[in-house]
Amino acid sequence: MIDLSHSIRTGMTVYPGDPGVRCVQSLSLDADGAEVMAVSLGSHSGTHIDAPSHSVEGGRSIDEVALDELVGDALVLHLEDRVGPGTRIDAAMLEAELEQFVAVPRIVLIHTGWDRHFDTDLAFDHPFLDRDAAQALWHRGMRVLGVDTLSPDRTAAEVAGGGAGLGLGKEAAPGVFPVHDVVLGGDGLIVENLRGLEQLGALARVGFFPLPLTGDGAPVRAVAWRPGSDLMR
Amino acid sequence: MIDLSHSIRTGMTVYPGDPGVRCVQSLSLDADGAEVMAVSLGSHSGTHIDAPSHSVEGGRSIDEVALDELVGDALVLHLEDRVGPGTRIDAAMLEAELEQFVAVPRIVLIHTGWDRHFDTDLAFDHPFLDRDAAQALWHRGMRVLGVDTLSPDRTAAEVAGGGAGLGLGKEAAPGVFPVHDVVLGGDGLIVENLRGLEQLGALARVGFFPLPLTGDGAPVRAVAWRPGSDLMR
Repeated sequence: MIDLSHSIRTGMTVYPGDPGVRCVQSLSLDADGAEVMAVSLGSHSGTHIDAPSHSVEGGRSIDEVALDELVGDALVLHLEDRVGPGTRIDAAMLEAELEQFVAVPRIVLIHTGWDRHFDTDLAFDHPFLDRDAAQALWHRGMRVLGVDTLSPDRTAAEVAGGGAGLGLGKEAAPGVFPVHDVVLGGDGLIVENLRGLEQLGALARVGFFPLPLTGDGAPVRAVAWRPGSDLMR
Repeated sequence: MIDLSHSIRTGMTVYPGDPGVRCVQSLSLDADGAEVMAVSLGSHSGTHIDAPSHSVEGGRSIDEVALDELVGDALVLHLEDRVGPGTRIDAAMLEAELEQFVAVPRIVLIHTGWDRHFDTDLAFDHPFLDRDAAQALWHRGMRVLGVDTLSPDRTAAEVAGGGAGLGLGKEAAPGVFPVHDVVLGGDGLIVENLRGLEQLGALARVGFFPLPLTGDGAPVRAVAWRPGSDLMR
């Protein structure tokens, strides 16, 4: 199997304003007979899933998402050679990839290669989709959108530079997160901060297994099965 | 798919001495434009996996465990009608179940039904395996042992009554955790606090997907595939 998840580590990059990540030893072999860590993180730390309630009033929470929605064949759009810092992935760029498809699988992953910039400043200046690109996918049947960036929407410089305490309120006027609006607003799901998508072909069997939280989202273990692997073994 | 995981909730039962679990709202739709929770938990909270380094000096940590070790066909031993509070599951009780098997699958799950007592005092007075029972399974090829109790070992009353701050040191003399010694000492893995095993037959395809921590263990999303489900869809 292929791991598509970032490790959860103290001080890892999080979306601006989100709770930080901290993993510290709580019990030790010498003093307590067993090692145990205390872990603090946000519901959107590392590789994670956004439930509709993350940004939609009255939307579904992660515990209302069935596991069957999160496992299946995915279309992987490999755009890594066509994007750079801040590239807007528009409908035209996607249509070139999609013209052979009247419909797409329920799960679509956008490979930008931006996971290699995770934990650097460049992580915030990531490629992003515009509303029309999100709608082009949605209208072909996509219901789960996965990206290897902090967000499928642009992460505004004012937000990225602000850090904790700035508050996202002023950035969150309608239309500022158009991809979230299209996908979560349609009761779909978004997976952010995937890694290692270069290991996948154009079609891949994937699974996103959330920490069983109750609320707006959850860190996931994101995996893919190697092509031709016997899933029954 | 079938969910075999307890929800992660504020104040949920944890093993005596472990860090408590807390999930609180960190960002809100009204003030911040998005909901995000702050989550504090231990590496052994809820349904979780023990890596060898949990109790073995120099043992493997969870990030050194391959996903392939955690997904596969499991033998499920349904003992729920034969156990009560504090029942010792000995080799003789297991041998009756195992006599038809020269070998068992790599993953063996023990169904005691004790998950229905999770979050009650009875959770601590759970059925447990003795060393011979663990060795009977180990010698037949088991490498991953899953239980629906707090531990496959007895949770001593002194420990259970002590709560945080007692320290497990005095309980952790060699032999006090004999099942951990057999399984983790052999570089195997233990999954604790499973739930819903009554939904499985004698053989089930299961997967344990850990939060991608680095260290002694991690909460997992534990799942089973329904018999006859097309795993490729």
